[in-house]
Amino acid sequence: MKNAVGREIPDELLVNNKRVYYGKNQIDGQYEQKVGPKRRIGEKPREDKLVATLREACEKCGVHDGMTISFHSVFRNGDYVAAMAVKTLVEELGVKDLKIAATSLGSAHDIIADYIEKGVVTGIQTSGVRGRIGEVISAGKLKTPAIIRSHGGRPRAIAAGEVTIDIAFIGASASDYYGNAAGIGGKNNSGVIGFAGPDAKYANHVIVVTDTLVPFPNLPAAINAMDVDYVVTVDEVGNPDKIATAEARMTQDPRELMMARNVADIIANTPYFKDGFSFQTGVGGPSLAVNRFLEEHMVKNNIQMGFALGGISNAMCQLQDKGLVKKILDTQCFDKPTIEHLAKNPDKHIEITTDEYANPSNQGAYVNKLDYVVLSALEIDTDFNVNVITGSDGVLRGAPGGHPDTAAGSKCCIIVTPLTRGRMATVCEKVVTVTTPGDTVDVLVTDYGTAVNPLRQDIIDCLDKAGIPHVTIESLKEKAYSLVGRPDDLEWEDKVIAIVEARDGSILDVVRRIKPVTLD
Amino acid sequence: MKNAVGREIPDELLVNNKRVYYGKNQIDGQYEQKVGPKRRIGEKPREDKLVATLREACEKCGVHDGMTISFHSVFRNGDYVAAMAVKTLVEELGVKDLKIAATSLGSAHDIIADYIEKGVVTGIQTSGVRGRIGEVISAGKLKTPAIIRSHGGRPRAIAAGEVTIDIAFIGASASDYYGNAAGIGGKNNSGVIGFAGPDAKYANHVIVVTDTLVPFPNLPAAINAMDVDYVVTVDEVGNPDKIATAEARMTQDPRELMMARNVADIIANTPYFKDGFSFQTGVGGPSLAVNRFLEEHMVKNNIQMGFALGGISNAMCQLQDKGLVKKILDTQCFDKPTIEHLAKNPDKHIEITTDEYANPSNQGAYVNKLDYVVLSALEIDTDFNVNVITGSDGVLRGAPGGHPDTAAGSKCCIIVTPLTRGRMATVCEKVVTVTTPGDTVDVLVTDYGTAVNPLRQDIIDCLDKAGIPHVTIESLKEKAYSLVGRPDDLEWEDKVIAIVEARDGSILDVVRRIKPVTLD
Repeated sequence: MKNAVGREIPDELLVNNKRVYYGKNQIDGQYEQKVGPKRRIGEKPREDKLVATLREACEKCGVHDGMTISFHSVFRNGDYVAAMAVKTLVEELGVKDLKIAATSLGSAHDIIADYIEKGVVTGIQTSGVRGRIGEVISAGKLKTPAIIRSHGGRPRAIAAGEVTIDIAFIGASASDYYGNAAGIGGKNNSGVIGFAGPDAKYANHVIVVTDTLVPFPNLPAAINAMDVDYVVTVDEVGNPDKIATAEARMTQDPRELMMARNVADIIANTPYFKDGFSFQTGVGGPSLAVNRFLEEHMVKNNIQMGFALGGISNAMCQLQDKGLVKKILDTQCFDKPTIEHLAKNPDKHIEITTDEYANPSNQGAYVNKLDYVVLSALEIDTDFNVNVITGSDGVLRGAPGGHPDTAAGSKCCIIVTPLTRGRMATVCEKVVTVTTPGDTVDVLVTDYGTAVNPLRQDIIDCLDKAGIPHVTIESLKEKAYSLVGRPDDLEWEDKVIAIVEARDGSILDVVRRIKPVTLD
Repeated sequence: MKNAVGREIPDELLVNNKRVYYGKNQIDGQYEQKVGPKRRIGEKPREDKLVATLREACEKCGVHDGMTISFHSVFRNGDYVAAMAVKTLVEELGVKDLKIAATSLGSAHDIIADYIEKGVVTGIQTSGVRGRIGEVISAGKLKTPAIIRSHGGRPRAIAAGEVTIDIAFIGASASDYYGNAAGIGGKNNSGVIGFAGPDAKYANHVIVVTDTLVPFPNLPAAINAMDVDYVVTVDEVGNPDKIATAEARMTQDPRELMMARNVADIIANTPYFKDGFSFQTGVGGPSLAVNRFLEEHMVKNNIQMGFALGGISNAMCQLQDKGLVKKILDTQCFDKPTIEHLAKNPDKHIEITTDEYANPSNQGAYVNKLDYVVLSALEIDTDFNVNVITGSDGVLRGAPGGHPDTAAGSKCCIIVTPLTRGRMATVCEKVVTVTTPGDTVDVLVTDYGTAVNPLRQDIIDCLDKAGIPHVTIESLKEKAYSLVGRPDDLEWEDKVIAIVEARDGSILDVVRRIKPVTLD
């Protein structure tokens, strides 16, 4: 059955009320029965919740074949807890048929790729699929299709009962002996741990893993002890130096700076750019650089940002320190200075969960109050559909993250990307995989020109009025193809290796096994 | 069927898995399936959640005969919102068979007594039943027995699905247009609004009622906009001057001061009195005065309180300002200086919900970490059972509040009360109604002597070692009877007018209709 972004969804996936994507805002105004966790009652006073080892904590919670576990990804490539947890369950406790419902997976989790190959890990639900895990899933080695969700889609699925987490392992920079835990106050700080918020609320068991025990009560805390079964101390929960990736840098590339300046100019010439406006930007080179040029416009127009949202980097913290940003609503700290800034500014740099950030089924996530979001793309097609999950070779190597959520929620979603990367056209006829539907994407800024989605005549008028040049997205695609050639169609097998869920839970796209499979 | 505190519970109440009270910690370690709310999905961005009138907000949420509504009691006798909400539903929308699941009810809610008499309000679930409401319920005018729960029992019942709230009306001192709401930052501040925490999480609809709209996003906030359907502004949400009751004063009565000193001496001579100890006290005269004498012991022994818990009054804030209390965990501000102190000290004076405070079915409420609690009583019997709900005339005029929760959770629960009040013996053979089971009560301090529960030989040994005199509770009862006479037995009809639930949901006692009924 074909869905609203023109993708053919196999009928056999449309079971258990699963439906294809019909378009944005299809569930708005409906009523949803949220589920609750099955929790151990702690009526009797006890001294603490400390147990000596992760193994013991797992045993006390109860382990069984086929169980589903979760962990968060705030330490990104520096995360140690997920690997510890999986290893304990598989190696020490012999759990088979393990399902993983992580917030994201990357190079810190190569051990999970091994367990997929061994057939021990049989299910993956995640936003990001990077590194070896993406390769083995793409190679068809996971027993069931991976389910790819956005940051907002994940808490939606959890609250709807589509995912039941048996044990959530929550790596925390600091915790008291009762489980009041946070990403600050320890020796390895991650900053916010809002990715784990839904897990703490909905998992049947919650184990806090920390390397820094602090005095009780560790309040205010991001993770509430009322939700925590056990606390385990380990040597190191993660390495904050590995949170910042190569992408999270302020670019010096003149092309990227030009694109960033163009994005800022577009923002400054649309009607939402007024005192109290809200803004989110990614960490890719040109996205991040938008901050710099936006600052000039804000100062010139004497306006202040009402709130900055999303994954936060130091550039935004600096803007706040200059008095240009009233509140930062932070769902992930992208670098160490941001972590320090969070700890020092509890009144205006505020941790939020992914639920608050982006869940389409609560009563209005913060993405719904976004004026502008600036996002990158691996590919964007002439219907403005964006792909941020599969490479041009068809292999999983990305993450929707908050991309589809912020695109859907914001008043103006701007994609900024170079027209080509190496020999690949970024603007193309049909993206390999749709992760963000085109009707939620408003503007595309490339190094070869800007295109506005024809659905947004209001923005076209603004650009015309401001004398900002723009072209059709078809012309950008043609330009890209003229530079690097029209790509050959990828050849796919029938086997579905991943399902891309829209944020509302419907099926947006599927990823099939590519043939021949390219590994390494 | 007789329960563990010797009360005869009518069989007809033991339906739907309801059981009689077996004793403390009977549900510890069991697993409970928590429920979730049925929530309206807010996928589509919208400017705000403001609606012009309470009536419109109710209509948008949907009203029906037999519906259950809730509101919190943090403004105590100064609350305006509950009356507004009930009046709107009954007078403007014609709702019949209305059920009320409030955190407490008192003199601010006389209008509900009228609606009970008219047969429009047919069900009451509450902690406190004071004023006219207590009288009309006691007179048998409510169609179904009132259900009396402790502050911990209420969130337990809500999370277990025993109460389904159709609409929660949350009066808030300040809110943004999206429903991020708090008890500070407005023109009529209540301080914490943690009583409404479970309602915000579990009600199917949440309406925030405020008299002070503040800029979005109003963060950090006690009530999360993600849970809120609509925001309504009114002239005044409540009168903070009426929060402090006559009881919440620092006594000058020499008898009360003597009792308070004795309580502090007992605390100082038990092993939990060490650096980092935790403490809660009520607002009755002698309870509150304990702070003063405890301060002397703390200074002398050079120890600091780890945390103070519960309803908080200015005496505790002052102790913290002197450096004697590390954290205050505040579930209700008892006076205006405490409200101001909360606003000024977000790092160490911390708002908690009643769920975190006292719910026996989460994974360890703060009451479970209490070393000492000092509580008052209307009556205490020779089994150490306490009554804080019915007067000596059998009429409802009190509130269990956190009494049974803190008694059960704390290591040492001290009841402080004069031996007689007027012509009534406070220490008696059988309390009129059991609200706190005797096996959770450890020490009784009266103006005629101290008694220790024989279950606590360890505390008896401590007192003996310190040379603190104590007597049997039987001798205190005899002394009381010798002073004011043995009271006549009350005469009851069969009709049950209220059920007192133990904090674990079992039936602790019932209150029958007294004959003859005495109404003003």
